[in-house]
Amino acid sequence: MSEYRAPVKDMRFVMDELAGFKELSSFPGFEEATVDMADAILEESARFSGEVLAPLNRTGDKEGCKLTASGVTTPNGWKEAYAQYRDAGWNGMTSPAEFGGQGLPDTLGIAVKEMLCSANMAFSLGPLLTTGAVEALLTCASDELKAIYLEKMISGEWTGTMNLTEPHAGSDLALIRSRAEPQADGSYKVFGQKIFITYGDHDMTENIVHLVLARLPDAPAGVKGISMFLVPKFMVNGDGSLGARNDAYCVSIEHKLGIHASPTCVMAYGDNGGAIGYLLGEPNRGLEYMFIMMNEARLGVGLQGIALGERAYQQALGYARDRKQGRDAVTGEALVTIDKHPDIRRMLMLMKSRVEACRAMAYYTSGLLDRAHVLADAEERKKALYLAEFMIPIVKGGGTEMGIEVTSLGVQIYGGMGFIEETGAAQHWRDSRITTIYEGTTGIQANDLLFRKLMRDQGATAKIVFGEVYATAKALGASGKPELQAIGQRLGVALKAWTEATEWLAANAKTGLGGVLTAAVPYLHLAVTVCGGWFMGKAALAAAGYLDKEEGDQAFYRNKIATARFYADQMLPQANAYAATVMAGDAAIAGLGSELFDA
Amino acid sequence: MSEYRAPVKDMRFVMDELAGFKELSSFPGFEEATVDMADAILEESARFSGEVLAPLNRTGDKEGCKLTASGVTTPNGWKEAYAQYRDAGWNGMTSPAEFGGQGLPDTLGIAVKEMLCSANMAFSLGPLLTTGAVEALLTCASDELKAIYLEKMISGEWTGTMNLTEPHAGSDLALIRSRAEPQADGSYKVFGQKIFITYGDHDMTENIVHLVLARLPDAPAGVKGISMFLVPKFMVNGDGSLGARNDAYCVSIEHKLGIHASPTCVMAYGDNGGAIGYLLGEPNRGLEYMFIMMNEARLGVGLQGIALGERAYQQALGYARDRKQGRDAVTGEALVTIDKHPDIRRMLMLMKSRVEACRAMAYYTSGLLDRAHVLADAEERKKALYLAEFMIPIVKGGGTEMGIEVTSLGVQIYGGMGFIEETGAAQHWRDSRITTIYEGTTGIQANDLLFRKLMRDQGATAKIVFGEVYATAKALGASGKPELQAIGQRLGVALKAWTEATEWLAANAKTGLGGVLTAAVPYLHLAVTVCGGWFMGKAALAAAGYLDKEEGDQAFYRNKIATARFYADQMLPQANAYAATVMAGDAAIAGLGSELFDA
Repeated sequence: MSEYRAPVKDMRFVMDELAGFKELSSFPGFEEATVDMADAILEESARFSGEVLAPLNRTGDKEGCKLTASGVTTPNGWKEAYAQYRDAGWNGMTSPAEFGGQGLPDTLGIAVKEMLCSANMAFSLGPLLTTGAVEALLTCASDELKAIYLEKMISGEWTGTMNLTEPHAGSDLALIRSRAEPQADGSYKVFGQKIFITYGDHDMTENIVHLVLARLPDAPAGVKGISMFLVPKFMVNGDGSLGARNDAYCVSIEHKLGIHASPTCVMAYGDNGGAIGYLLGEPNRGLEYMFIMMNEARLGVGLQGIALGERAYQQALGYARDRKQGRDAVTGEALVTIDKHPDIRRMLMLMKSRVEACRAMAYYTSGLLDRAHVLADAEERKKALYLAEFMIPIVKGGGTEMGIEVTSLGVQIYGGMGFIEETGAAQHWRDSRITTIYEGTTGIQANDLLFRKLMRDQGATAKIVFGEVYATAKALGASGKPELQAIGQRLGVALKAWTEATEWLAANAKTGLGGVLTAAVPYLHLAVTVCGGWFMGKAALAAAGYLDKEEGDQAFYRNKIATARFYADQMLPQANAYAATVMAGDAAIAGLGSELFDA
Repeated sequence: MSEYRAPVKDMRFVMDELAGFKELSSFPGFEEATVDMADAILEESARFSGEVLAPLNRTGDKEGCKLTASGVTTPNGWKEAYAQYRDAGWNGMTSPAEFGGQGLPDTLGIAVKEMLCSANMAFSLGPLLTTGAVEALLTCASDELKAIYLEKMISGEWTGTMNLTEPHAGSDLALIRSRAEPQADGSYKVFGQKIFITYGDHDMTENIVHLVLARLPDAPAGVKGISMFLVPKFMVNGDGSLGARNDAYCVSIEHKLGIHASPTCVMAYGDNGGAIGYLLGEPNRGLEYMFIMMNEARLGVGLQGIALGERAYQQALGYARDRKQGRDAVTGEALVTIDKHPDIRRMLMLMKSRVEACRAMAYYTSGLLDRAHVLADAEERKKALYLAEFMIPIVKGGGTEMGIEVTSLGVQIYGGMGFIEETGAAQHWRDSRITTIYEGTTGIQANDLLFRKLMRDQGATAKIVFGEVYATAKALGASGKPELQAIGQRLGVALKAWTEATEWLAANAKTGLGGVLTAAVPYLHLAVTVCGGWFMGKAALAAAGYLDKEEGDQAFYRNKIATARFYADQMLPQANAYAATVMAGDAAIAGLGSELFDA
C-alpha cells in the first residue's frame, strides 16, 4: 500500500503565485481566508487525507460496495471515515455561512478537494455530489425547501445525488423519459429509472436527497421540457425528523472498471405508487439549473485527473527510489535504484510536470470563479466568469486525459509489478478511466470550448488568454536567463500554432462544420498543451524571482524551473502537431459514410 | 458480449501487397504456402477464433484461474477449447516438418496468431510461450532432448514456459540467483524461485516443459553466467510415457489487472530436494539463447497490441452503429446512431488507421524474418535479418503503446457503458496494459532500437529504411492524385524529422549519453509514427493501382486510401514534435539528482 502526502508546498505556491489567493481575503465575505487560516486548514486536511482516507483506498477497491435487502453497504471503514469527515466540518467549507457553511473561497477549497480525491477518489465522490446538489438548491430551491434541506446537506448529515442519465439518455438528455405527476398538495409523484447514480444509496447517512430530472405532463419535447425535482430517500417531518421511506430505491449496482467503493446505482423511482418529490425552481428549466452547477462539477472532475496523477506520481517515485535494477548508464555505478535511469527519470518528470501544469490551470480557474462572485464591478465579474468558463473545458478535458496517461506511466514505472493489483498502481489507472466520460466526455468538452466558449463572444475571451500567454512568453524571453528563455521560445511557437488553428476554425465554422467538429478534440488538446506551458512559464518566472531574492525554499524553486522547462521540451512541441491536425479537418473522410469503417 | 470477425480481407491485403507473401511459395521449403492454402487456413482460423475462442474471452476474464491442491485450474471451457486447438493442428503451423510441424511461413502464421489473440488474448499466451520454448529447443537442445520433447510440444500435447524473472531480477537479468547443481548422471538439480511465469501450471495438458534460467556452481557473475535448463513438470520415461512428478511447483498465482484467464505463476523449483533439469546447449550461454527467441517473442507481443486494438475497434464500431444519441450536427437529422457524430468518426478512424498501420509493420517484419531463413544469398539473408531486427522494437514498442491507446478509445466510444465490466470494452484495455511491460518494456525497446539496431552498423540499416520511406513519399507525390500527394507531402516532412533526430542522436551518443537515453522513447515513438505513415502510404499506392485497374473490391481500396490519409493527417504531424523532444535531450534536468522529484 502506498502512502499519500499532500503536496502542500506546490499547492500553496500555485494558490499564491498563479491563482491570486492572497488577494482574496481583501474582498467582503472572504475576510477569514487569510494565509494563516489556509495553512492551518491545509495542514489538517493533509493529515486527515493521508491518515484516514488514503489507507482505505486499496481496501475499498478490493471490497467494493454491496447491495443488500436493506440497501447499499459501503466497504469496511467507510462509515467511520465519513463520520470523521462530517464531524470535522469539511463538507461545508465553501458553502454559505447562512446555512452553516464556512464560506471560504473555492481557491482554498480546491486544494482540500484535491487531497480528498488523491487519498481516496471513491470516497470523495459522495461529498462532491452533495456539494453539487447543495449548489442546485441554492440556485433554485424555494425558501421552504432550503430551510428543510440545506443545513443538513451542508453539514454532511445528509448526502445528495444528481439523477440525469437513463439507459437511452446518456450524453443526449433530450431523450429523458422520467415523469412527474402533480399532486393536490403541491408535491409531485416521480416515476422513472435512472442509471449511473453515484452514491444513489449507501449506509453512511440517515437520509439521501436525490435531485431528479423528469418531465411534467405538459412539458415540451426535448431539453426544454425537463424539470428538476427534489426526492428525499426518507420524507422529512415538520420538526426535521425523518418520516416514511419514499418510493426511491436502488435496484442494482454496477460492476465497474474502477472506483469500486463508490456505489453506482440503478435507481427506480415510483415503482410502488410514486416517489414523492418537489419541483425545484420553475417548470422546464431543469437543464438550465443543471448547467449552472456544471462549472463546479466539471472543474471538480478535471481535478480528479490531477489528484489521481499526483497520487500515482508519489507512488511511482517511492517505488523508483527503492527498486534496484541495472547499472547507471552514465556513471557506470552498479545496481542502482531505478530513479537513476534516464527513461525512468523522463517518465517521473513527465508525470510531475503534467500534474503541476494542470494543477495550476485548475487552481487559477478556481481563483477566477471566486472573483466572479466577489469582484465589485459587474463588468469585471463577467470577465472573470467568462475566463473561468473558457478554462473549464480545458481543465476538465485536459486534467482527465492527463490523468489517464500519467497513471499509466505510474504502472509502467512499476514494470511487471504494476500489473499486479496488490501494488495499487493499477487502481489509479482504472479509477481514472471514468473521468474523461462523466460530466461530459472529452468530445463534449471540446464542443463546449469551440461552440460555446470560443464563439459566443467571437473569440474575445480567447484573445484575452492569447494576450496573457504572449505576455508570459515575452517575459520569459526578456528574463536574461537561458533556462527561462528556452521555455519562452517554445511557448511563443506553441501560441502561434494555437492562434492559427483558432483562425482556421473561425473561418471554417459555418461552411465546413464536419471538419470543425472533427477538429474539436485535437483543438482541445492544443489548448491544454499551450495553457500548460503558459502556467508552467508563469511558475518559472515566479520561482526565478524568489531565487533572485534568495527568499524561500530555493530547492523548490530550482525544481520548479527545471520542471517547467521539461514540460516545454516534452509537451509544447506537440502544439504544432495538433494545429496541423486541426487544420486538416475531415479532408480524409469527408463525404464517406459509415461504410468507411468496413473491413 | 462482442463478436469477433477476423479481418481477413485486410490481412490478405497486407500479406500480399506489403509483406511479400505471394513470392514466398517460390522458395524451397515453402512450396505449400500457396495463395489457395493461405485462404483455406485463414478461413478456418477465422472460424475457430470467432466461434470457439472469442466467446470464452469475457467468461474467462470473469472467472479467472484458481490454484488448488492439485495445481492450477483454468476457466470453464478452456480445456475443451485447447483440445480443439491442438487436435486441429494449429500449434505446429510454422514449426519444422521434421518434428511434425507444417513448416509454413511466419507471414501466414502471424495472421493466425493475430486472430487467436484478438479472439482471446489470455488463451493465446499458452501457445505463444510454447512456440518460444520450441524455438529454444530447436536452437540449442541436444538431439536426445529434441527427440523426447519437440514433437509433443509442437503438436501441442505438452506446453512450454519461459522462466526468467525473479523477484529481485526483472529487467535486470544479471541478478538471477536460481542455481543448478550437476548430478552424476549428467542431469542437474535446479533450485530457485521464479515469478511472472505465464501458464507455469494449468490443467490443459498432461505435461509442461519449463525452460529455466539458472547459474552453474562455477558460473561467472552477471549475465555471462546464466545457463538454460529444461525442467519437465513430469519426468519422461524412455518410452515417452510420463514418470514421476518433478520438484517444480506453482506456489501461487497473481491477482492481475488483466489477462485473468492466463495463469501467472510463482514457480518454486527444488523446494523438495531439487528439480531435475537438463542443460540446454552450452553452459553460461542461456541469455544468448533467450535472445535468439526474442525476435519472434517481441514481434508476437507487438502483435498483441494490434490484435487487442482490432478487437476493440470491432466492438466499438458495433456499438456506435447501434447506439442512438443526439442529432446529426451537419445534416440536422434527429436521433442518429453515434457513428454519424464527427468525433466518434474521428475516434473510430484513429482506431482503424493505427491498427492497420501497425498490422502492416508487423506482417512486413514477419516477411523479412521468413526471407532471413530462405533467401539463397547469405548477404541478402543478413540484410533481411538486420531489417527485421531494426523493425522489431518499432513493432513491439509501437504496437503495444498503440494497443493501450486504441483500446482506451474503445472504452471512450462506449461512454458510461465502457466503464461497466459487463460490456467487455474495458477488458481489452486492461488486457493491453501488460504488453508494454513484458518481453522488454517500451524503454528497453527504445534502447534496443538506438544502441543495438541503429548503431551496430553505423546507421546502415536505418539508411535503407529511410531510402524506402523516401521512395514511398516520392511515389505518392508523383501519383498525380491529390489524396495520395497529401499523404506523400506529410510523409516527406515526417521523414525529414526522423533523419534529423537520428543525426542528432549519432552526434550526441558519445558525449551526451544522459540526453540520448532520455530521448530514446520519444525517438521510438518518432520511428513508429513515420513507419506507420510509410506503410499506409505504400498501402494507398497499392490500393490506387487496383482502383485504376478497376480490379478487386473497389470499396475496400477506397477505404484504404481514406484510412491512409487520415493516418497522415492525424499521426504524421507528431513526427516533428517527437523530433524536437528528442533533440531537447535532457537539457532541462541534466545535472539534477533525485532531489528534483521532491515536492
